[in-house]
Amino acid sequence: MHRTRVRVVEDALDANNTIARANRADFDREDVVVLNLMSAPGAGKTSLLEATLAAPLPGGGPRVGVLEGDVQGSLDADRLADRHVPVVQLNTAGGFGGECHLDANMVRSAIDQLPLSEIELLVIENVGNLVCPAEFRVGEDARAMVCSVTEGEDKPLKYPLMFRACELVVINKIDLLPHLDFDLDLLLHHLDAVNPHARRMLTSARTGEGIEELREWLSTLAARAPAVL
Amino acid sequence: MHRTRVRVVEDALDANNTIARANRADFDREDVVVLNLMSAPGAGKTSLLEATLAAPLPGGGPRVGVLEGDVQGSLDADRLADRHVPVVQLNTAGGFGGECHLDANMVRSAIDQLPLSEIELLVIENVGNLVCPAEFRVGEDARAMVCSVTEGEDKPLKYPLMFRACELVVINKIDLLPHLDFDLDLLLHHLDAVNPHARRMLTSARTGEGIEELREWLSTLAARAPAVL
Repeated sequence: MHRTRVRVVEDALDANNTIARANRADFDREDVVVLNLMSAPGAGKTSLLEATLAAPLPGGGPRVGVLEGDVQGSLDADRLADRHVPVVQLNTAGGFGGECHLDANMVRSAIDQLPLSEIELLVIENVGNLVCPAEFRVGEDARAMVCSVTEGEDKPLKYPLMFRACELVVINKIDLLPHLDFDLDLLLHHLDAVNPHARRMLTSARTGEGIEELREWLSTLAARAPAVL
Repeated sequence: MHRTRVRVVEDALDANNTIARANRADFDREDVVVLNLMSAPGAGKTSLLEATLAAPLPGGGPRVGVLEGDVQGSLDADRLADRHVPVVQLNTAGGFGGECHLDANMVRSAIDQLPLSEIELLVIENVGNLVCPAEFRVGEDARAMVCSVTEGEDKPLKYPLMFRACELVVINKIDLLPHLDFDLDLLLHHLDAVNPHARRMLTSARTGEGIEELREWLSTLAARAPAVL
């Protein structure tokens, strides 16, 4: 059974890459840069987007759209709708108990509902999970992940594929550092061990620390600057 | 492709349930009660086990063994080995990019390495993930999950299957409550909406708050008391 299962998964991944390339072609046709944003549940992806999109992005204010991936519900999409950006909710609960990640086919099913001609940057907020989202390309240009300091220093070692897959690692909730037994240097040391090239950023969606740096990064990404891509 | 995929997943789940029943028969033969312990990454499962197993459990000190599930590495097993309990590490990274959950077949592959005749309670620490672990029975008697207050109040609504699947919801890291914009009543309200019958417990592995209550619950579980099962 195990061999059969692995083969099916590989077939599915091949199909996924084919569809991801089709998505990418559609995004390129509309000149939309796409970011796949990932994290564990509750690391603060939506709160960071709320803080980041509270004002037009620097660098001419590239227009942003958001595709919200969740097992079910539209809580995050509802929060972001208050930021006056186009938001489309994509639920993965159609399967047996809900898919734990977005794949290229799910993203493709939402493309028609996205106003691609009106935006320059599409942020795809993936399902909260540190394993499978990193395994499925969806047609993105770049990948970023959010890692909360409340999750402990060992996460890069325990979920190395996720940390390796990303160009940017956002270390969030740093306002809580004084209240935690958390060694930031040790986290960075572990991150260096699995992905020394990842750009890293310290943020607090709550206090606003680091948000301007994240806004600059998103703006540079939207401009397709080589420093980011 | 989608229809084929769903069928394959259902077949896999059927096979999973068959193997889960075989696991359960093996556990019953040795009179071992099994707890499937789940959470998002970094919610504190291992820290709670460290605190809980620092001394013999109340009620005659039922002996505990731990099966540690991780994508890769043995960081958690190494931590628990200091508690002088038998620990077996089970890694899921054999697949394409690492499985995001334990299934019955993986647990079965580890049964031979567990000293079942020497323990009364086996705690299976699942891979950190709020979606798929809830979909795969592994032969357990009971299921518990750890939910950290740093993850936000909305998690029962976003990952309802996980919260519904568990007899016990441990709300951890409550020492951080004074430093968070977190509404505990709202979390409990959402938990009531998806699983009003779940026992709930407030803990801090760091300060020790609630640990004795959790130790009592584990002890009662090991005694197969109907109040818990």
